Amino acid sequence: MANVDLLNFSNPVFSSYAYWGAILVLKCFFMSPWTAYFRFKNKTPASPEDAVAMGARGEIKINTNNPEVERVRRGHLNDLENILPYLFVGLFYVLTSPSVFLATTLFKVAAIARIVHTIVYTVIVVPQPARGISWFIHYLIGIYMAISVVLYSM
Amino acid sequence: MANVDLLNFSNPVFSSYAYWGAILVLKCFFMSPWTAYFRFKNKTPASPEDAVAMGARGEIKINTNNPEVERVRRGHLNDLENILPYLFVGLFYVLTSPSVFLATTLFKVAAIARIVHTIVYTVIVVPQPARGISWFIHYLIGIYMAISVVLYSM
Amino acid sequence: MANVDLLNFSNPVFSSYAYWGAILVLKCFFMSPWTAYFRFKNKTPASPEDAVAMGARGEIKINTNNPEVERVRRGHLNDLENILPYLFVGLFYVLTSPSVFLATTLFKVAAIARIVHTIVYTVIVVPQPARGISWFIHYLIGIYMAISVVLYSM
Repeated sequence: MANVDLLNFSNPVFSSYAYWGAILVLKCFFMSPWTAYFRFKNKTPASPEDAVAMGARGEIKINTNNPEVERVRRGHLNDLENILPYLFVGLFYVLTSPSVFLATTLFKVAAIARIVHTIVYTVIVVPQPARGISWFIHYLIGIYMAISVVLYSM
Repeated sequence: MANVDLLNFSNPVFSSYAYWGAILVLKCFFMSPWTAYFRFKNKTPASPEDAVAMGARGEIKINTNNPEVERVRRGHLNDLENILPYLFVGLFYVLTSPSVFLATTLFKVAAIARIVHTIVYTVIVVPQPARGISWFIHYLIGIYMAISVVLYSM
Repeated sequence: MANVDLLNFSNPVFSSYAYWGAILVLKCFFMSPWTAYFRFKNKTPASPEDAVAMGARGEIKINTNNPEVERVRRGHLNDLENILPYLFVGLFYVLTSPSVFLATTLFKVAAIARIVHTIVYTVIVVPQPARGISWFIHYLIGIYMAISVVLYSM
């Protein structure tokens, strides 16, 4: 029998949560080299000591207004604002005895929505509302899980 | 009997942690529409493709200096800096066999302090030290829990 | 016998994870007074209402370009981007039945790498590649754990 009230891979809900959670963490980690790529491409170091590696000589100016770099940085910050709080309520939600089908579907859809968000925001730059919709799907799932946890633990 | 050494809703300490943790996640999630409200009000889009939805025509300038927008954004970043690390040590602290009364009180006070922080920073803008005190109460509880975990696991 | 598949201090892998996790949270929390120190030193308030406490009179200008303050803030944001996602995959990794020696060593090395990162970035400002190497060691361990979790839960 599945241990549906345990944080453990024998619980299929936890297993799905951890799988998609690890995928989302890899997605977050991807933003670092992705930012570095645009920093090198646009010779826009984050710190003066990085400028040498980009071939700078003489005076170094830190530019915080490069559109490509700032776009990736906004995408990264948006990940922190959305994915990290979601991973907490997702963990609590695992323990609220949800339907296995519903819970595993929500974890999957939420993770894919954030991957799409990164792509349309920072890779191919699709016009709105592509970014808004992908953001909103993940956001709604996060709010649903948070409310489920609040009601379950009251 | 309560399972005081388990991450599970049968453990009253975990239940309190998850309840107030989910409230704090909802509070974090609230910052997104709250930022969007000020972005629309001040016609200050985050990205060029958002400007059209705000009725912009012709050349689009990204303004990163609107005081109202930047205030909410600072509040949001302050949440990430404080609430997210706290939720990790809170989770570990649940397993250190704390007094149920002490632990549930700390989780409640810490969450309320962060809600007050958001209100006095971004909703009604109360003069200092209101924001400093609410920040500090939560911060001290986080440090107390972190030290408890370090001592317990040594 | 050790409960190697439980999130509990009776599991030596979890115990090591929680110990170094709490150390890393304390390290993150340290960035707040560390930022405040440089804000006071350089009279660079984050918000207008803070300026009075720094002895400002008359018109208040918010300066977002002070090099010392911005350096610490970049270090803090880098912590959020790296440490927080890592703490999630670290938690999942605890449950993948890793070798106790390997897992506890990785938790220790990852935490020390981030402490070194903060020191060389914001305390003594060592030339690159000191910061890059310490960032990369932690980053690689995070990716290794994330991939371990994905493979284990597939």
